[in-house]
Amino acid sequence: MKALAEAEIVSTPGKHEGSSRTVRVAVAGATGYAGLELLRLLGRHRHARVTRLMSSGRDGKKEFPIEDSHPSLRGKFSVPCQPLSVEALQSEVDVVFLATPHQTALEIAPQLLERKLRIIDLSAAFRLTNVAAYPRWYGFEHSAQEMLQEAVYGLTELNSATIAKARLVANPGCYATSVILALAPAIKKGWIDIGAGIISDCKSGASGAGRGVSEKLHFVEVNENCRAYGLFSHRHVPEMLQELDLAEKDFIFTPHLLPITRGILSTTYVRLSNPRAHEEVVALYRDFYAGAPFVRVLGAGAPEIQSVAQTNYTDIGFSLDADGTRMIIVSALDNLIKGAAGQAIQNMNIMCGFAEGTALA
Amino acid sequence: MKALAEAEIVSTPGKHEGSSRTVRVAVAGATGYAGLELLRLLGRHRHARVTRLMSSGRDGKKEFPIEDSHPSLRGKFSVPCQPLSVEALQSEVDVVFLATPHQTALEIAPQLLERKLRIIDLSAAFRLTNVAAYPRWYGFEHSAQEMLQEAVYGLTELNSATIAKARLVANPGCYATSVILALAPAIKKGWIDIGAGIISDCKSGASGAGRGVSEKLHFVEVNENCRAYGLFSHRHVPEMLQELDLAEKDFIFTPHLLPITRGILSTTYVRLSNPRAHEEVVALYRDFYAGAPFVRVLGAGAPEIQSVAQTNYTDIGFSLDADGTRMIIVSALDNLIKGAAGQAIQNMNIMCGFAEGTALA
Amino acid sequence: MKALAEAEIVSTPGKHEGSSRTVRVAVAGATGYAGLELLRLLGRHRHARVTRLMSSGRDGKKEFPIEDSHPSLRGKFSVPCQPLSVEALQSEVDVVFLATPHQTALEIAPQLLERKLRIIDLSAAFRLTNVAAYPRWYGFEHSAQEMLQEAVYGLTELNSATIAKARLVANPGCYATSVILALAPAIKKGWIDIGAGIISDCKSGASGAGRGVSEKLHFVEVNENCRAYGLFSHRHVPEMLQELDLAEKDFIFTPHLLPITRGILSTTYVRLSNPRAHEEVVALYRDFYAGAPFVRVLGAGAPEIQSVAQTNYTDIGFSLDADGTRMIIVSALDNLIKGAAGQAIQNMNIMCGFAEGTALA
Amino acid sequence: MKALAEAEIVSTPGKHEGSSRTVRVAVAGATGYAGLELLRLLGRHRHARVTRLMSSGRDGKKEFPIEDSHPSLRGKFSVPCQPLSVEALQSEVDVVFLATPHQTALEIAPQLLERKLRIIDLSAAFRLTNVAAYPRWYGFEHSAQEMLQEAVYGLTELNSATIAKARLVANPGCYATSVILALAPAIKKGWIDIGAGIISDCKSGASGAGRGVSEKLHFVEVNENCRAYGLFSHRHVPEMLQELDLAEKDFIFTPHLLPITRGILSTTYVRLSNPRAHEEVVALYRDFYAGAPFVRVLGAGAPEIQSVAQTNYTDIGFSLDADGTRMIIVSALDNLIKGAAGQAIQNMNIMCGFAEGTALA
Repeated sequence: MKALAEAEIVSTPGKHEGSSRTVRVAVAGATGYAGLELLRLLGRHRHARVTRLMSSGRDGKKEFPIEDSHPSLRGKFSVPCQPLSVEALQSEVDVVFLATPHQTALEIAPQLLERKLRIIDLSAAFRLTNVAAYPRWYGFEHSAQEMLQEAVYGLTELNSATIAKARLVANPGCYATSVILALAPAIKKGWIDIGAGIISDCKSGASGAGRGVSEKLHFVEVNENCRAYGLFSHRHVPEMLQELDLAEKDFIFTPHLLPITRGILSTTYVRLSNPRAHEEVVALYRDFYAGAPFVRVLGAGAPEIQSVAQTNYTDIGFSLDADGTRMIIVSALDNLIKGAAGQAIQNMNIMCGFAEGTALA
Repeated sequence: MKALAEAEIVSTPGKHEGSSRTVRVAVAGATGYAGLELLRLLGRHRHARVTRLMSSGRDGKKEFPIEDSHPSLRGKFSVPCQPLSVEALQSEVDVVFLATPHQTALEIAPQLLERKLRIIDLSAAFRLTNVAAYPRWYGFEHSAQEMLQEAVYGLTELNSATIAKARLVANPGCYATSVILALAPAIKKGWIDIGAGIISDCKSGASGAGRGVSEKLHFVEVNENCRAYGLFSHRHVPEMLQELDLAEKDFIFTPHLLPITRGILSTTYVRLSNPRAHEEVVALYRDFYAGAPFVRVLGAGAPEIQSVAQTNYTDIGFSLDADGTRMIIVSALDNLIKGAAGQAIQNMNIMCGFAEGTALA
Repeated sequence: MKALAEAEIVSTPGKHEGSSRTVRVAVAGATGYAGLELLRLLGRHRHARVTRLMSSGRDGKKEFPIEDSHPSLRGKFSVPCQPLSVEALQSEVDVVFLATPHQTALEIAPQLLERKLRIIDLSAAFRLTNVAAYPRWYGFEHSAQEMLQEAVYGLTELNSATIAKARLVANPGCYATSVILALAPAIKKGWIDIGAGIISDCKSGASGAGRGVSEKLHFVEVNENCRAYGLFSHRHVPEMLQELDLAEKDFIFTPHLLPITRGILSTTYVRLSNPRAHEEVVALYRDFYAGAPFVRVLGAGAPEIQSVAQTNYTDIGFSLDADGTRMIIVSALDNLIKGAAGQAIQNMNIMCGFAEGTALA
Repeated sequence: MKALAEAEIVSTPGKHEGSSRTVRVAVAGATGYAGLELLRLLGRHRHARVTRLMSSGRDGKKEFPIEDSHPSLRGKFSVPCQPLSVEALQSEVDVVFLATPHQTALEIAPQLLERKLRIIDLSAAFRLTNVAAYPRWYGFEHSAQEMLQEAVYGLTELNSATIAKARLVANPGCYATSVILALAPAIKKGWIDIGAGIISDCKSGASGAGRGVSEKLHFVEVNENCRAYGLFSHRHVPEMLQELDLAEKDFIFTPHLLPITRGILSTTYVRLSNPRAHEEVVALYRDFYAGAPFVRVLGAGAPEIQSVAQTNYTDIGFSLDADGTRMIIVSALDNLIKGAAGQAIQNMNIMCGFAEGTALA
């Protein structure tokens, strides 16, 4: 694999903070909710310029102003939204965000890499290193196995060094981000009795299901309701197992649909190998996330969705029983920002040597 | 027109209150929101038995238990939901509720009448007496003009005598019910300066738009939002004009979509021909609705949606300016009950000689 | 303890189904949300007549029409809401519903029993048999220890025989109802590996917190939010432990606040002692609840809040992992009905020999 | 009145765009919703530094970290929230935002001006030039009549020249902003038949009512509800009349409470003196707001709340009847941003010579 032109950019992280250098950005899948959020954030990014917007069309139109899809962007972007085209991405583009269906991403990513573009893929097409996981969890055969090895799982707080040099970043799932950040410090430290089982009971707003219409997402079906879904079978399970190095028999993840637009609250139940005090746990996590500007470890209390909505933060808090052996970890994030578009831009910042929080803080 | 078999039933209103007589009821369009509400109410109606459930199918299935569509009805109805069939309605059915698209109702109603069934049509197919209004407001030519003359506009409080004898009741639109009930007493009494213009600014929950999927009704699009639609062009305008005997130039109706499941709040602005005191207006309305068990005229304050949700009531309140010449009428009802299924059953009760409030109070 | 006048009523359960006999009912705490729900349901109860409404006052008024507090009840109850008074309960009352604060119930219940009234207490004052639990979990000393032994825990499906004869029924907590019904069949059958730990992650609408004002319940704080609270410390824990015969170390209950008005969804995680098939579990639960008209055991899928809202049902469903050893039980109910007022009336029906579902089905 | 030290700052609008100059800002009333929004926006303002946070206390504490009140600000502000003190404002402060009750603002503003601070008052204490309006609409006598003449009504789009030089800016009410911006161009141009009456039917989210607790703002009372309030009597009426030069008899304003957190949708009904085409109206408004970066005039369709939520924009759209004489103007804004904190900062930017959109775009 040849060296990337972009690799040079990365060499001195932070050096562009005051610079006027600009990357040219394309967003594929611009009409979805993650697309909207990417555009909101990119619109205030001092080092990014959106040069291409692409989608599979809208209301029968192939080319249209993006504000037809997202009225809140009225007057913000002069570039029209056009059909997805690898050719059109050949000029005036440095970085491509893929907010498309998994299989679209799988198909075009190899062609984009060939053209020396850097990719941040918000789909799941390159998140799993085990190619056999795709037919089981996603229902399709994976056609680009070698790229699964190259792709970097873009959970910024865990993998920033490899992200910095990556050509292809697989942006994590929203639920996965909330669960992995909640568990990683304690698991890596060996504090959790994994054999006793770990349970993550997670609650998400409806934007997490995307903008595609279905009766299940009709306002009346979601409003004044809450339901569990994907029991023992949700697609974010394999990436959690992979990143946390857990066996399926030791972990349960249950997502629930909340009648809110955005936000995830994850309540994770673990047993500790040895009794711990609350402040020990706080110290462990604060140490682990010392260099991570977008993780806030609470010294007391539990986070809630409102505290992180419209931000790139993940808040994490803890409660232990009287014995100090059973622990509840509560984590919260905005599924469209830290769980999707925000983390994608955080990764772009690192890939391009910009300050990590550019457009996010 | 031949005498109705059913007409005999009607002869002595009220006589069935303590009786064990039962009408056999079919619901066409059972899988929609009005269908669900009809079934909820019919399930507790002591004189009705649901013998047929029909719909255009669900998830590719033509016949299925109704709880597949409405889990809240689990265990309530043993009769399956089947494809709409005039033939199947020939036996074991006395009354048919049509909660189908307008054009379906238009097509099958004549056949049902021929079979001597009585019909309560929740669509707009027979609401307008002027056949020319259909192409303009609904976009289709009306194929059964003679039935427009026979059909009775089923606003129970205004037309109960003709409803009692009707073969075909055109159940009013939800917005129309809230506006007509708010205006009828003052307009009929000549208290309103009609030339000064009447404005009804109405707000409705999302169930009013039906269960069909569309991006506009996606949870995320409706939640934390409010929008006006159908400005100067909503389909409920012609029935309001017709029933209130108003000219188009003197009336504005503006609907708005609220992020709630059910309920309509209508704020209507009028000028009075002569100054009036608040208590005069209250007295006028209380007198007008003296025999109407489901209209509550407030002596003070304005109604709100919560007070009427899950009920068949319409609440009406008034505010006058210091001069007593400008008046705001606020009316509230549940769009699925008084605005649809509840009023339909109220009409059935009157048609069949049952107590008006059976299953509704 | 003297025989109750009321005890005679109970002797032949079911005998009043067609009768015109009426119990006279008082509701103390009528201005709260449980009070409203009691009144809605009692208003359609063919064997109950509300003769006394009591509360601690409203807007500085001691006596007022109940519709001042609950506008939806406009025109429904002519009896005014008055200050709580044991004296006023001496005449024209057979059954008293206490929907008051715990300590109010604790204080007046003994006096009411002395006057031979039957009591259904919606507070927690008499739910726990262990008097020592009160200072720990509720923060007050219990002053009527002997009544804790007499009181019957009013989870209808488990205790109907003793409820039938009870003078004092302690109506269960809303969360507790959802968790106990979800676990009782499997625990009593010995199918659950209790030592492996049981976790109930529960989500409730805001009406569960009552009508008292606080910043935490301000619309803006609850809307578009979700938060965990009462970690390892919620007051419903001891009644769950008591009724399920569990030790504190083996059970975790975590409540969450949902941005909805009503409904509880409980997701309960257990390990089974031996592998089971899904249909075995369904059969066990269906058998256990064979005589319980208000528990619906799902043969497939998981219940959701909308299916039980505005009803007295508890829906229960199951999911097992591939090995059949880890099981998720999802249960749903309406916290104001099955979790409070509905179960209270269900208990009254059984106490008075009425059909169990009167006013509830 | 002495010249202001700050006046010099203002002399060359725009000159600070690239500068590193910083104003020191105090926020009084920091614990409310407008306070939170001010802090969010100020936190990303490149020329502002928050040096003082003040409030009347919280949970019995007089001094506390602001994140105790607003957890979303965790880690953002190191300065504690302290009791309101004119003395403490004497040092390290250039501009004071008052987000306090009206009478608090009335009391301290004169003292702050004396200390040569510049004030942006989000209360109504200085919005009305007619001192007699205060007892009628606000229920208190105004004690600083001379300041009513000096204060500038801070509707940025109409008054930017005087705002630039003002010592005391009276930030407009949220409803008033939405209505005045919707009407000003057509009224000033003389296109509206004012004698025919103007009606603004407005809908607002619950944050507009502030964070103070009351039963009316309990989640359960607001959720799944909509109600009109303040009919013919809302406090924002006089500022609308004043700024639009209308007589009370010609204008009706009716606010409604929506079950959403933030946003106002105003539907305004007017008659035109002469028939107009839609594009004429659009052209008039686009011309009028040509220099206003935060007003977006729609060429087609009606704005909705989601398009402006979380932004400082006001969107305005129009619908005319077939004759071109009756017009509906729909305007939408975020009540906490353009209707409060955003406009306040827009005003600060103009007062201080910063780019108008700093921290807002």
